[in-house]
Amino acid sequence: MKKISDSTISRLSTYFRTLQRLIEQNRETVSSDEIAEINSITSAQVRKDFSFFGTFGKRGLGYNTRDLKNAIGQILGLDKKWNVALAGVGNIGKALIDYQEFKTQGFNFTALFDINLNIVGKTIKGLTVNHIDDVCRITKNANIEIAVIAVPANVAQEVIDSFISCGVKAFLNFAPITIKVPKDVLVKNENMSIELEALSYYLSQK
Amino acid sequence: MKKISDSTISRLSTYFRTLQRLIEQNRETVSSDEIAEINSITSAQVRKDFSFFGTFGKRGLGYNTRDLKNAIGQILGLDKKWNVALAGVGNIGKALIDYQEFKTQGFNFTALFDINLNIVGKTIKGLTVNHIDDVCRITKNANIEIAVIAVPANVAQEVIDSFISCGVKAFLNFAPITIKVPKDVLVKNENMSIELEALSYYLSQK
Repeated sequence: MKKISDSTISRLSTYFRTLQRLIEQNRETVSSDEIAEINSITSAQVRKDFSFFGTFGKRGLGYNTRDLKNAIGQILGLDKKWNVALAGVGNIGKALIDYQEFKTQGFNFTALFDINLNIVGKTIKGLTVNHIDDVCRITKNANIEIAVIAVPANVAQEVIDSFISCGVKAFLNFAPITIKVPKDVLVKNENMSIELEALSYYLSQK
Repeated sequence: MKKISDSTISRLSTYFRTLQRLIEQNRETVSSDEIAEINSITSAQVRKDFSFFGTFGKRGLGYNTRDLKNAIGQILGLDKKWNVALAGVGNIGKALIDYQEFKTQGFNFTALFDINLNIVGKTIKGLTVNHIDDVCRITKNANIEIAVIAVPANVAQEVIDSFISCGVKAFLNFAPITIKVPKDVLVKNENMSIELEALSYYLSQK
């Protein structure tokens, strides 16, 4: 399989959602033109993205929505459930536990961590908050493969290093800081302010 | 000025943060090599990004950290304060009100909206929650230029349309749905699950 760009992967996530919605509406087939139209991109881009993975549909007949959704889901690893740890149970952390979209796509928080002794030991949404010192024991027991980092910037590197030392290799990081990791570890950064800055840039050019 | 790509704008935001941190550490100058090293990208990329805006520094001497931060801040529109509305005061909305990074970069929530009559009229973090029906009156009074949308997917289009009808042209959208807008309106989507799917894709390829 060819090396697939981050932007293609991100568009596959978008197509997956489009297909989920079409299936809810009992649609059996869909064309690349319609998928393009719904997402405001070109149909050439849609067909190019699909071409990375071989042909899903038949020319003129369109794609079967369920087959296409399952094929994309399999590529994205959404055909399985993922056990996810959350480090940092502050405001953002708590909002993430409730973020319905994670559950829908198969990402389940199964372990919570914090260092605040006022929170450690408490139960939030049915899960006990553990101290970060117990990270290796808990992540192994709970079979954690992904960790979401919602701790302050000044401790984010240290917290991610702890997870890496226990074998966790995939992170979604909300701390506004660049994290250094070994080559076989992937960190995706979610800095919500950066998208706002793209808006202020846009407004400033007017 | 040349058309600047979204990824360049996003990297400028990253450099801005790097410079903020260096200034906190009382650093007076920095090289493009060091900015590159801190952010795990090539120094050629850093110099290319800077070249869009003319020269900030002197070869061999590096860049003055304050001058460079101010120049990038001005490009990104971070030299002013932005009045931001928040629509949807649920879990995510509440976390966003507290999101320190927004305030640091000059984005201030100055108007809150919801449709839940149990919330409308209440005060959250010193701001009254307004009904979305009052959106035009309030956004004009509060001089709102950006709206953050944290409402459920099924009402997001409608809520954004309301803001557009009052002249708001820039949106940060947390609802997991593609929004249709006129050409002079910019929507940045923040779907936190899409980054997780990039992680599950990565783990699935191993």
